[in-house]
Amino acid sequence: MKHLLSPLDLSVTELEDLLNLARDISKDPKKYSHVCDGKKLATLFYEPSTRTRLSFEAAMLNLGGSVLGFSSANSSSASKGESVADTIRVISCYADICAMRHPKEGAPMVAASKSSIPVINAGDGGHQHPTQTLTDLMTIRELRGSLDNFTIGLCGDLKFGRTVHSLINSLVRYKNVKFVLISPKELRIPDYIRDDVLKANQAEFIEMENLEDAMPELNILYMTRVQRERFFSEDEYLRMKDFYILDKSKMALAKEDMYVLHPLPRVNEISVDIDDDPRAAYFKQVQFGVYVRMALIMTLLGLNNK
Amino acid sequence: MKHLLSPLDLSVTELEDLLNLARDISKDPKKYSHVCDGKKLATLFYEPSTRTRLSFEAAMLNLGGSVLGFSSANSSSASKGESVADTIRVISCYADICAMRHPKEGAPMVAASKSSIPVINAGDGGHQHPTQTLTDLMTIRELRGSLDNFTIGLCGDLKFGRTVHSLINSLVRYKNVKFVLISPKELRIPDYIRDDVLKANQAEFIEMENLEDAMPELNILYMTRVQRERFFSEDEYLRMKDFYILDKSKMALAKEDMYVLHPLPRVNEISVDIDDDPRAAYFKQVQFGVYVRMALIMTLLGLNNK
Amino acid sequence: MKHLLSPLDLSVTELEDLLNLARDISKDPKKYSHVCDGKKLATLFYEPSTRTRLSFEAAMLNLGGSVLGFSSANSSSASKGESVADTIRVISCYADICAMRHPKEGAPMVAASKSSIPVINAGDGGHQHPTQTLTDLMTIRELRGSLDNFTIGLCGDLKFGRTVHSLINSLVRYKNVKFVLISPKELRIPDYIRDDVLKANQAEFIEMENLEDAMPELNILYMTRVQRERFFSEDEYLRMKDFYILDKSKMALAKEDMYVLHPLPRVNEISVDIDDDPRAAYFKQVQFGVYVRMALIMTLLGLNNK
Repeated sequence: MKHLLSPLDLSVTELEDLLNLARDISKDPKKYSHVCDGKKLATLFYEPSTRTRLSFEAAMLNLGGSVLGFSSANSSSASKGESVADTIRVISCYADICAMRHPKEGAPMVAASKSSIPVINAGDGGHQHPTQTLTDLMTIRELRGSLDNFTIGLCGDLKFGRTVHSLINSLVRYKNVKFVLISPKELRIPDYIRDDVLKANQAEFIEMENLEDAMPELNILYMTRVQRERFFSEDEYLRMKDFYILDKSKMALAKEDMYVLHPLPRVNEISVDIDDDPRAAYFKQVQFGVYVRMALIMTLLGLNNK
Repeated sequence: MKHLLSPLDLSVTELEDLLNLARDISKDPKKYSHVCDGKKLATLFYEPSTRTRLSFEAAMLNLGGSVLGFSSANSSSASKGESVADTIRVISCYADICAMRHPKEGAPMVAASKSSIPVINAGDGGHQHPTQTLTDLMTIRELRGSLDNFTIGLCGDLKFGRTVHSLINSLVRYKNVKFVLISPKELRIPDYIRDDVLKANQAEFIEMENLEDAMPELNILYMTRVQRERFFSEDEYLRMKDFYILDKSKMALAKEDMYVLHPLPRVNEISVDIDDDPRAAYFKQVQFGVYVRMALIMTLLGLNNK
Repeated sequence: MKHLLSPLDLSVTELEDLLNLARDISKDPKKYSHVCDGKKLATLFYEPSTRTRLSFEAAMLNLGGSVLGFSSANSSSASKGESVADTIRVISCYADICAMRHPKEGAPMVAASKSSIPVINAGDGGHQHPTQTLTDLMTIRELRGSLDNFTIGLCGDLKFGRTVHSLINSLVRYKNVKFVLISPKELRIPDYIRDDVLKANQAEFIEMENLEDAMPELNILYMTRVQRERFFSEDEYLRMKDFYILDKSKMALAKEDMYVLHPLPRVNEISVDIDDDPRAAYFKQVQFGVYVRMALIMTLLGLNNK
């Protein structure tokens, strides 16, 4: 039984197989439109996340399978006091694979330990969100052709942003990836990422405060939101907020073949003015997210017959 | 790319094609049971509306397609501050067509402007609800054989009832349709309907207060609810409330081949005593609503190969 | 038109046919994977019940059909004042069969009286939950080979537990079933079950307070939860609560071929320590629940061509 609980559950080789399958799917989705006929995906969302849930559902439907589940905890048995361990044993009788979103860290791991079907972690609190990372990796690989040899800027809230941490964790496994970490001082990456991941892997990285200064060097810019309430003071917020808003003037400083990614939802950290810039890749990223989830479902169900 | 945002988006000719297709579907639904195989409908309901949502879902399932979406805003990304424009771009990666219900007027129009899939307005605030109008038109046409030459009574809250406004807007395009507008004074049709629609199109109409007086002349009676709180005073309400409740005694005044329509839900403005009267057509109307939505989905997806 | 409103709607012979079909499905589910192609199940859940709802959905999907509906009243038309009678007439236009859960006793019966599609009662208040009873009956029959000649212990809240009442009502129709009724005095079975069901059918039964004393005699133990607030006093609760918690030491007193059932969700009345005991059958019971619902859907749709 295989599960996906953390992006690092997949070795570099397994990941390459997965991304190759996702690429093949993206080239000819019709070819895969019946591989999951008769299979069922359960979407167990203990907290709402429309985009992630619907991406999984679209993926399963694209494969010919069907979907059942719930989209918030108050319509689940959790409200009657049932444990996640019991719920997954019940769901194992209903579905062939499941995607679980839970506000508590580790809940999908507990589920996996009792499950007789593959469990995909669709986000557990501030902890992991591995299919977002797979989406990010596929997007970079499809846009650039490879996951080696590039400079990525990670901008915004680097302290609490789980997608940023997962992406760093995954990218240090590739050759010659340089990290430019752009954030207010209060929101710099945590020590365990700086020391145990970046330094431990001899990754090249710099930390800076101002996105503008970083722009010209970047091949990929990964934007995230900086919430006002996370700044040290209102003065600090006012002084710095524009540093983290991507607009036309900052885009003018970037390379011609730089790409902008964002895990979405975007609030105002990317101006809608640049949506039509060919380098704005955050909606393409959504499409890649469907393909990579199709590949993941197939792989965990053992349907990836290379 | 075609959308359906207002009932008037369709010309009289396009509407006729649509209603012909809907009729053909109603005669032999099986013939159409696979035309949407592999297609997905997204139902984006920012406010709940079970009847409308399930009508769309039944329509898509009848065509062999599948459905994903959300049924209320609190389980959507809207609660995280995402704009409708961003949501539709995301949904464009997940589905082939979408039906959107939104409490804000114009939201589906904003969505359509950014969408790469057809958007159907499934109701935007007090503004438009075009598939209800298509349902009403199909019902009248199927029951009477034609949309020309008849007298329609519109009864209840004519001031705020968007289904009434849309229906008037659509019916003035047909020949010799006479309107009998039955409402309390406080709830008469707005000036822009009376002047810019009825008078501007030389439609014949009269306004009256008492349904009983109108009954004998009508070929179609379109009932809507009058909410107590919309009367000028409690005295007024008590004096008039029975004018707007359809019961057996009023039905006794009607023609043999008159039909009663209602957009539903009905509360008490139609007595359940008349549900079995063959002239009570409001549940048939629900069935026509499924057929016309099937025809609409096919048409917007370009699957109506006449 | 056939509905399932109470477990006693089915005669012993009809039930045997149903359970035979369910058994055949359990042996080779694939054989039935297209019998409901093109059919739609509506799940009308006026109160949430994930396990029951998803069991119905899994059943219909396993048969090749599809599903639409709602999972809580606030996303239904009920919030706009629509009656159950009107809702079911609308749903009759959308689906081929429906499963209704409602907090009010008798709501599914009202629905059935106005419905043009089969209605399955998926639980109405404290009243009936017939598909749970079918699940219980199938589980006992599959585990023991027969519904005759055994001793069943029913443990916990026997006063308010509708699943217990329904199960007793059904089992008195079989030969030589002995009942051991284990509960606090405050939560003994109601008189109308003791007198009008057990005594009226000459069923053998005893009532006792302590599960431990009953264990050695049982072939089946049906556990339910005892809620703290239902005890007469806190002292009573503290004195007795352990009587109703099934753990390893109590299991040590049981027969080798005794089986434990539970309608779920379980809170703490069964220790997780015994989940791996081969006699713990409550998760198998969930699986049987899917098969018996598949058989029920087929039967009510007239697809059981023996």
